[in-house]
Amino acid sequence: MKLSFNTWVYSSFPVWVPAYPLDEVIRRLARLGYDGIEIGAAAPHAYPDYLTAERRRDIKQLLDDNNLAVSSMLPAPGGGAGFNVASANPAERAAAIDMYKRVADLCAEWNSPTLLYVAGWQVFGTSRAQAWAWSRSALEEVADHAAGHNVTVCVEPTSADSNLIDSCDDTITLIEEAGRPNVAAMFDTFHTHYRNEVPTDYVYRLGDRLKHIHLSEADRNPPGTGSIDFVGLVQALRDVNFDGYLTMEIGFSRRAVDPDDMARQSITYLKSIL
Amino acid sequence: MKLSFNTWVYSSFPVWVPAYPLDEVIRRLARLGYDGIEIGAAAPHAYPDYLTAERRRDIKQLLDDNNLAVSSMLPAPGGGAGFNVASANPAERAAAIDMYKRVADLCAEWNSPTLLYVAGWQVFGTSRAQAWAWSRSALEEVADHAAGHNVTVCVEPTSADSNLIDSCDDTITLIEEAGRPNVAAMFDTFHTHYRNEVPTDYVYRLGDRLKHIHLSEADRNPPGTGSIDFVGLVQALRDVNFDGYLTMEIGFSRRAVDPDDMARQSITYLKSIL
Amino acid sequence: MKLSFNTWVYSSFPVWVPAYPLDEVIRRLARLGYDGIEIGAAAPHAYPDYLTAERRRDIKQLLDDNNLAVSSMLPAPGGGAGFNVASANPAERAAAIDMYKRVADLCAEWNSPTLLYVAGWQVFGTSRAQAWAWSRSALEEVADHAAGHNVTVCVEPTSADSNLIDSCDDTITLIEEAGRPNVAAMFDTFHTHYRNEVPTDYVYRLGDRLKHIHLSEADRNPPGTGSIDFVGLVQALRDVNFDGYLTMEIGFSRRAVDPDDMARQSITYLKSIL
Amino acid sequence: MKLSFNTWVYSSFPVWVPAYPLDEVIRRLARLGYDGIEIGAAAPHAYPDYLTAERRRDIKQLLDDNNLAVSSMLPAPGGGAGFNVASANPAERAAAIDMYKRVADLCAEWNSPTLLYVAGWQVFGTSRAQAWAWSRSALEEVADHAAGHNVTVCVEPTSADSNLIDSCDDTITLIEEAGRPNVAAMFDTFHTHYRNEVPTDYVYRLGDRLKHIHLSEADRNPPGTGSIDFVGLVQALRDVNFDGYLTMEIGFSRRAVDPDDMARQSITYLKSIL
Repeated sequence: MKLSFNTWVYSSFPVWVPAYPLDEVIRRLARLGYDGIEIGAAAPHAYPDYLTAERRRDIKQLLDDNNLAVSSMLPAPGGGAGFNVASANPAERAAAIDMYKRVADLCAEWNSPTLLYVAGWQVFGTSRAQAWAWSRSALEEVADHAAGHNVTVCVEPTSADSNLIDSCDDTITLIEEAGRPNVAAMFDTFHTHYRNEVPTDYVYRLGDRLKHIHLSEADRNPPGTGSIDFVGLVQALRDVNFDGYLTMEIGFSRRAVDPDDMARQSITYLKSIL
Repeated sequence: MKLSFNTWVYSSFPVWVPAYPLDEVIRRLARLGYDGIEIGAAAPHAYPDYLTAERRRDIKQLLDDNNLAVSSMLPAPGGGAGFNVASANPAERAAAIDMYKRVADLCAEWNSPTLLYVAGWQVFGTSRAQAWAWSRSALEEVADHAAGHNVTVCVEPTSADSNLIDSCDDTITLIEEAGRPNVAAMFDTFHTHYRNEVPTDYVYRLGDRLKHIHLSEADRNPPGTGSIDFVGLVQALRDVNFDGYLTMEIGFSRRAVDPDDMARQSITYLKSIL
Repeated sequence: MKLSFNTWVYSSFPVWVPAYPLDEVIRRLARLGYDGIEIGAAAPHAYPDYLTAERRRDIKQLLDDNNLAVSSMLPAPGGGAGFNVASANPAERAAAIDMYKRVADLCAEWNSPTLLYVAGWQVFGTSRAQAWAWSRSALEEVADHAAGHNVTVCVEPTSADSNLIDSCDDTITLIEEAGRPNVAAMFDTFHTHYRNEVPTDYVYRLGDRLKHIHLSEADRNPPGTGSIDFVGLVQALRDVNFDGYLTMEIGFSRRAVDPDDMARQSITYLKSIL
Repeated sequence: MKLSFNTWVYSSFPVWVPAYPLDEVIRRLARLGYDGIEIGAAAPHAYPDYLTAERRRDIKQLLDDNNLAVSSMLPAPGGGAGFNVASANPAERAAAIDMYKRVADLCAEWNSPTLLYVAGWQVFGTSRAQAWAWSRSALEEVADHAAGHNVTVCVEPTSADSNLIDSCDDTITLIEEAGRPNVAAMFDTFHTHYRNEVPTDYVYRLGDRLKHIHLSEADRNPPGTGSIDFVGLVQALRDVNFDGYLTMEIGFSRRAVDPDDMARQSITYLKSIL
């Protein structure tokens, strides 16, 4: 299985510092031995509005020079713009869908096979059924756009942060309702831990719908430093013939963090158990 | 002194839930007895892109109906867009300046006398001198735009979150360099606590430059529940004839929070010491 | 609003000791000033199999003598018998439905207007849709039986313990699907706290569907000893004209507990804020 | 010495989730390398009421196919039915005795040599002498039934949960009073730790009466993760020629647990010290 590392902890999202230019992050992750990088579409790295055509080409060149693949991409929900696909405000929903499409375009340009989909959240006053309908409709529109780029959209249950697609079965239901061949599933051990659920239950339940995975201990700590059973998780992933990236999404929830240390601890531990 | 409450904890910034429509927040804060509201320009409340002219008028009407003043406004830095006025990326700096101007326009429409200014942060690879220069230049451009609306721009030192304008004297230096009559200062007891500094030192040092203040205990808890000396702070504010709003900016750093409870605890405590 | 106290902490469910005969519990709660008692159908109190007709009459007499109403009743899920209405085993589902019916019969005999419904949980290998369908079917059968006794069945979201009916909207959906006039909702502040949700959101969202409520701090501690905003909750209940019982369901999760102390602390605090 | 693993953590007793079908548990424990399984008579695994004759045969076949022995069985005390053999309610005592007999029948069918006996607890209002007499009488009746199946009944002191048979000597006294050849002893390091007692003291004091043992750290954590001296315990067991199963009874007291991880950690540690 290949290893990837998410860029949030090196970016200004959601905490502002420390922050590094994307060039620096690409070189550092490659040097640490990662196969892939998961690029979040946030400043100062890859907010679509701020990327000129030249800059996009330069980044692609730098990735190639460092032999680092883009495993996946995702927008940054929750800033001023919200980008809640289940918002009661139609302008916010439209902006969110547009953001997903633009990140899908970046996926195409940088050869990322995967776009992650955060399905939004219920604001007080909106029913779950209505929020779900808006989220599903947005997913369908995003997936159809991504299909043109051969990009798979992976729905992520985000129980720790949201209140709409919380569980493994919520994810499956949404995928089945969308009914698109390029809509699949992912999950994050941080969120299964938040729900006090067993990660391997997700692996076996999702089966071949599972195309991506985030690894994290509680508190967004590196795999191997906490209580989550990654040995069992790797076994279960092999049982279902998972061939995606094991992607660390860690460290970004606080300022007091050394990103390189997070990346180094993770890869050292995972290589020891793979 | 008048009391105001910041809307982050009721919004999707920075954590996504709980989130309430702005109408609900206005009614609740008014019922709890607040004089003012500090409106953050974040979804689902007041992200400028999502507000139609009709919606802006409706909010103004609702504020008036509930006898609730807008004490102040501020953008939401750190989402995907970053809005770092000290970013090395000129597109991000331009977007940040534009965002401040649009929030200044909202201040004008909703009679907010005050716009808060977060002065940005240094990204790895940018010198402090360069970051400072960009931040100062942005401040001047924002202030000149705000001046046309009779809006005062208050520079806030944000040591806990950033690395550029950290201290009382950084703030004074930036204000003096800007040299605009509508540029003033504010500070937040959360940030002075982070630096192990004494809040009243800021009051006496800033003097009549001080036009706004944020009250918070450590961990963004309500005033009166922690270790900060708000009795002494109120005395110091009286000593310098402060006549702005005491504004709670609390609770927003985590999901596990009851916003109304935060607002009730704060006003109950502050009325007991004023 | 009337006050009631749940009997688990005085029973052998789920922890075995301390345990008291039901007669003792009735006398103690009445003496402490409670209006009602919520009787769990567990040994040594009210497991239906163990109650003779004479014993049932004696308990009714004792309740009347002590001027203590039965606010509500509920079975004990999760022992050897499970009583999971969403179990894949048809014998377990049938036993669970039968248990609910027998507790409904006890409600009738002891004048309890309310029967609580724990909607079961997903076992590995059962899809959520299937578990939901079984739970809904069981609810309908239980409700129809209870209707003959003029007993209302209140669905409780139990996020901390289960994985099927977790949220406010899950509850509403299940109620609406059942479509019976004697099916309503309740919630427990212990479970909303587990989900990091705001109790008053449940009150306003459930509105006149809300017929019962459990009060508890985190860790099943008495109201007023923790962080939950019961002042705000009582205000919200008044806003929606709630006229049911405020029922403490506390202390039962551990052996190291003094049940009378739990009951006394709760009533003292609640009378101080009502 | 052979290693076995108790099923509670995979069942709905006492916490409802996570829960797995017994088939799944048998396959997983066998794959992890266990010699035996201790099957608790709780849903969804082996509540006697819910097991058809066909299902019993299928489970036997699955055990044989996976080369997994049943080391032992036990009922689940403390649910709604209580199953307290020392209850003041004769119906509850009769139900408890009947449950033990039915689990003994399952032992016979699945070749389990051992049935565990939880000796009940004193409810307020019952004297210890009376509770003891009821418990002893029940034990005699259960043992005589089990004798017909060549099943040994092992009395377990459960100090952490009960208040009747708390100590090593309570256990010996009860066994001697029963005076049946198929009544023996067991103990659990979780309970000796609760009483601040030394596990090897139990081994030497019980001697050849000791036929079964439960291994657990404090908080029902896996052996090897806490403070208990399992190296010394294994030596003592060898000293007394113990030839039963070392059985893990762990993890079941809470929801936040990964059962496979518990099972894997335990067997890895125990194989390292045996």
